Amino acid sequence: MKALVLNCTLKPSPEKSITQQLADVVTTQLRELDVEVSCERVVDQRVLPGVNDQMGPDDDWPALSDAVMASDVLVIATPTWVGHPSSVAQRVLERMDSLISQTRPDGEPVVWGKVAGVVVTGNEDGAHHVISEVSGGLVDIGFTIPGQAWTYWNMGPGPGPSYGDTDHGIEWSRNTGITMANHLHAVATALADLRVDSSSASS
Amino acid sequence: MKALVLNCTLKPSPEKSITQQLADVVTTQLRELDVEVSCERVVDQRVLPGVNDQMGPDDDWPALSDAVMASDVLVIATPTWVGHPSSVAQRVLERMDSLISQTRPDGEPVVWGKVAGVVVTGNEDGAHHVISEVSGGLVDIGFTIPGQAWTYWNMGPGPGPSYGDTDHGIEWSRNTGITMANHLHAVATALADLRVDSSSASS
Amino acid sequence: MKALVLNCTLKPSPEKSITQQLADVVTTQLRELDVEVSCERVVDQRVLPGVNDQMGPDDDWPALSDAVMASDVLVIATPTWVGHPSSVAQRVLERMDSLISQTRPDGEPVVWGKVAGVVVTGNEDGAHHVISEVSGGLVDIGFTIPGQAWTYWNMGPGPGPSYGDTDHGIEWSRNTGITMANHLHAVATALADLRVDSSSASS
Amino acid sequence: MKALVLNCTLKPSPEKSITQQLADVVTTQLRELDVEVSCERVVDQRVLPGVNDQMGPDDDWPALSDAVMASDVLVIATPTWVGHPSSVAQRVLERMDSLISQTRPDGEPVVWGKVAGVVVTGNEDGAHHVISEVSGGLVDIGFTIPGQAWTYWNMGPGPGPSYGDTDHGIEWSRNTGITMANHLHAVATALADLRVDSSSASS
Repeated sequence: MKALVLNCTLKPSPEKSITQQLADVVTTQLRELDVEVSCERVVDQRVLPGVNDQMGPDDDWPALSDAVMASDVLVIATPTWVGHPSSVAQRVLERMDSLISQTRPDGEPVVWGKVAGVVVTGNEDGAHHVISEVSGGLVDIGFTIPGQAWTYWNMGPGPGPSYGDTDHGIEWSRNTGITMANHLHAVATALADLRVDSSSASS
Repeated sequence: MKALVLNCTLKPSPEKSITQQLADVVTTQLRELDVEVSCERVVDQRVLPGVNDQMGPDDDWPALSDAVMASDVLVIATPTWVGHPSSVAQRVLERMDSLISQTRPDGEPVVWGKVAGVVVTGNEDGAHHVISEVSGGLVDIGFTIPGQAWTYWNMGPGPGPSYGDTDHGIEWSRNTGITMANHLHAVATALADLRVDSSSASS
Repeated sequence: MKALVLNCTLKPSPEKSITQQLADVVTTQLRELDVEVSCERVVDQRVLPGVNDQMGPDDDWPALSDAVMASDVLVIATPTWVGHPSSVAQRVLERMDSLISQTRPDGEPVVWGKVAGVVVTGNEDGAHHVISEVSGGLVDIGFTIPGQAWTYWNMGPGPGPSYGDTDHGIEWSRNTGITMANHLHAVATALADLRVDSSSASS
Repeated sequence: MKALVLNCTLKPSPEKSITQQLADVVTTQLRELDVEVSCERVVDQRVLPGVNDQMGPDDDWPALSDAVMASDVLVIATPTWVGHPSSVAQRVLERMDSLISQTRPDGEPVVWGKVAGVVVTGNEDGAHHVISEVSGGLVDIGFTIPGQAWTYWNMGPGPGPSYGDTDHGIEWSRNTGITMANHLHAVATALADLRVDSSSASS
């Protein structure tokens, strides 16, 4: 089983991404479950604005899209800005928009049988909304969202510390992240035939 | 396999519910797939405000909660008001809130392995947001949302006709509803062992 | 100047409403500014489901609607449940829906020139989304939302204490509530003529 | 009075922006009211990811931020993608995030007294949610949102035509856009002293 994490932080490498730090709880547990995990920091690549598969000769999205299609499990990891998913996360959803109208030979969406979850960090409030926004988009595209396939860390009210700045809630976020990985793995395992059907149908 | 439709229209019986009319596309297809379907019109019952299992001696929620727990598939059908899920749909989510903290003997959420989808009607705009809001809540509680497990009908811009008042888009909404039923059935079938594990664990 | 607070807690009197406790920060400051403030606990009244002015002989909404129309400032105070405004808050928005299509003799919405703000409490996360949902509905109906006319208290991540259970963030929420009251008062004062035009036009 | 329209289409010049076409209804009416209007197509500029005033030597945001600060009225015009504001609109909100913590000498937010509204286009559904998301962010930053200071065009259910492809609803969207301009102008006029206080206080 393969998983892909798209880290949608606004910070280019080599800046530290605390969103990646929380995502790493999920990737560690996925690897414990023998899932092959790769991570991409989207802001380091050139993902052009638009809603087509390819938006120009120097567009890095096609390679990321191939990575999505090669995975059984997709994790969107995003910070919270102004209470919303980051502009990079929204860019990723926009670029996946072209997948909505693509179908497999059996008529199912091209991502049918793939599962997805969401990791959110922030320095104030808004994680559940970010999870709903991103999950809603992923369901539109055809991903299945397992129950409680998310984790987050923030601390209201008002602007405050970031993940890792304080011990408050760290254990809850980590435990919730481990559950997320377990749920992604369990549902992706159960849906394997829905993906297999696709492969055989299209070959 | 059993499915439960909670119709969250604001209109008590015997008024016509157009939300039920679109939900019926889904129930008809579920029955084609040999799913046993029951529908409840929530506004006809006395669902008291609160977030506990039982909020008083004349509270009708416990019977509805039992029906949720006895089902493999849950469909929330709701109109769109002021761009949001109806107050009745939000009441249902609030009453299911108490399920979040309940776990099975194996540590999984009590609704683990159950799948859910959303049917939305409206006379203007807002269906995708309503789907995200309701799906987000259901994922919190532990339901799995299959890809594209929703349908809706509305017609922007501005206030306009209701579902059934015009032919515009009816076929799209019906076809999308049939796909929704197929997706709920396929994922609920694939997740059967996750639910079975629960039954055996708790008996 | 008159202000009305609609407390949308799920808890009927005489249970303690912590949402009211945070709202009281705002009402105290409004009274300092010589605003006449009244508070209604909506769940104590019989607000029937529907979107018309009156939904039956025992419907308490018409009196609440009159109170809205008699006020210059409206505050919606709501807890956060499943990340959303309470079902009682959504019920209030649904009942105000009928105001959208009503206009003054000068063609303006009947609430034109009135201002509104939002107070949110919760035991986890979600306040900014609740503020956006409620504010968005109020803007549709025709209320003006002054900048930073909100306050909230919650404390993520995961389920935790309620407002008043800990000192964390209390001062921030109180200071933000005082600013909210000042902003509601300043904008309501500036918009007085927009409301006066209405009164003279309709008399 | 000065107004700034930030067009957050994903399409770079010289491609036709239909979002601009609907925004032009608003700008035409603002000019009728003697407002000086300028429009910026954000995607044509290099607005770097981040939440600081300046994110690098080749960052075009500082000039756009200056234009925001020089305006009395801000209009965010955005298409709807995956049911959300565009990634360009979210980028703009993220870059304005640094304004939240800046205050005038009198303690008010630096945009205090400025008003804002939202124009939305789309080929399916989602305008009211986009309006709530963008307005919610703008209120956080300190902008005042006049009642009904928005317009939109879309046409559900399912993917369909774009603004201008059909006559359906065009007149409603145009009339609503004219009302939006009138409301922005009326409230910006009423709040002039709130802005003037700022100028005198900071000079």
